[in-house]
Amino acid sequence: MLPSSYDRQDCSLARALEIVGERWTLLVLRDAFYGVRRFNDFLAHLDIPRTVLSNRLRALVESGVMVKVPDPSHSARWLYELTGEGMALWPALYALRSWGERQSGRRPRVFTHDACGTPLEPTARCETCGVQPAPNRVFVAPLAEPKPGARTDPVALGLRRKHRLLDFLPLDSDAA
Amino acid sequence: MLPSSYDRQDCSLARALEIVGERWTLLVLRDAFYGVRRFNDFLAHLDIPRTVLSNRLRALVESGVMVKVPDPSHSARWLYELTGEGMALWPALYALRSWGERQSGRRPRVFTHDACGTPLEPTARCETCGVQPAPNRVFVAPLAEPKPGARTDPVALGLRRKHRLLDFLPLDSDAA
Repeated sequence: MLPSSYDRQDCSLARALEIVGERWTLLVLRDAFYGVRRFNDFLAHLDIPRTVLSNRLRALVESGVMVKVPDPSHSARWLYELTGEGMALWPALYALRSWGERQSGRRPRVFTHDACGTPLEPTARCETCGVQPAPNRVFVAPLAEPKPGARTDPVALGLRRKHRLLDFLPLDSDAA
Repeated sequence: MLPSSYDRQDCSLARALEIVGERWTLLVLRDAFYGVRRFNDFLAHLDIPRTVLSNRLRALVESGVMVKVPDPSHSARWLYELTGEGMALWPALYALRSWGERQSGRRPRVFTHDACGTPLEPTARCETCGVQPAPNRVFVAPLAEPKPGARTDPVALGLRRKHRLLDFLPLDSDAA
């Protein structure tokens, strides 16, 4: 058995991994940056067991990375939103994503700075403006046609058009 | 059971996590950036079962992130070194580490650019020089006294002085 924490590793990386290192957690956060907020939308897009998603969201709320607020359009349901601490993960998540793109040799999407349209550097910085735009100043757009058999859940469909990060996803019109 | 890959997630982040998302893998890579190359040194510093370390190193070699070369000073032993693809993980690893530092509120170490001595920004960039130094242009130095009960393995002792990333660690003189 591996220990469930890294408490004998006096290291900030170990601390980060205690919070976001569980399987699927960074993909839940990726979806939150895309603008996903409802449990059922995370569920349909990630395609993981309900209990896994539920555990991951609870842990993210407990550690202060996300916050749970009542869903104004569905009583007794919740929306899950990134906190300031969660938003601060953006450069790390984007850098890891950039490395994955390099490994896969595929570039399914491009992320651009809203102010100038420049694609972000691998560190999430805009070379043109010399700044690292906050996620709500970043557009994501597909670069490639969907692969045969690609997902058709509402979030996946919503991501087939240019979209500002953190803007609510999916829209009602994204339902398949 | 969770699937062992994220193959229905058409996403570069999922690809990255397939390679480096297993428990302990990013801490093995952290140690490789510190300059650790021998199996027994990783083992003593990470304090994980031999089979786990062995599996992680094998997977990293298979995916081209590390390479295994004969140890010139011990016949029948190997050194594990980062490849170019492994080095390319530096900004992601450093950004995640910076976020962990923010979460823990502790700053056990500082990373500085060798050319100017400036502490790196959270994205591993040097503000003074306007560049992102390669890891072999970065020094790591402790900022705090070791906590009571802190590790005393040779790698931990080696990290108690200023050290250039990727330079061989530990030195013979670091043995406890």
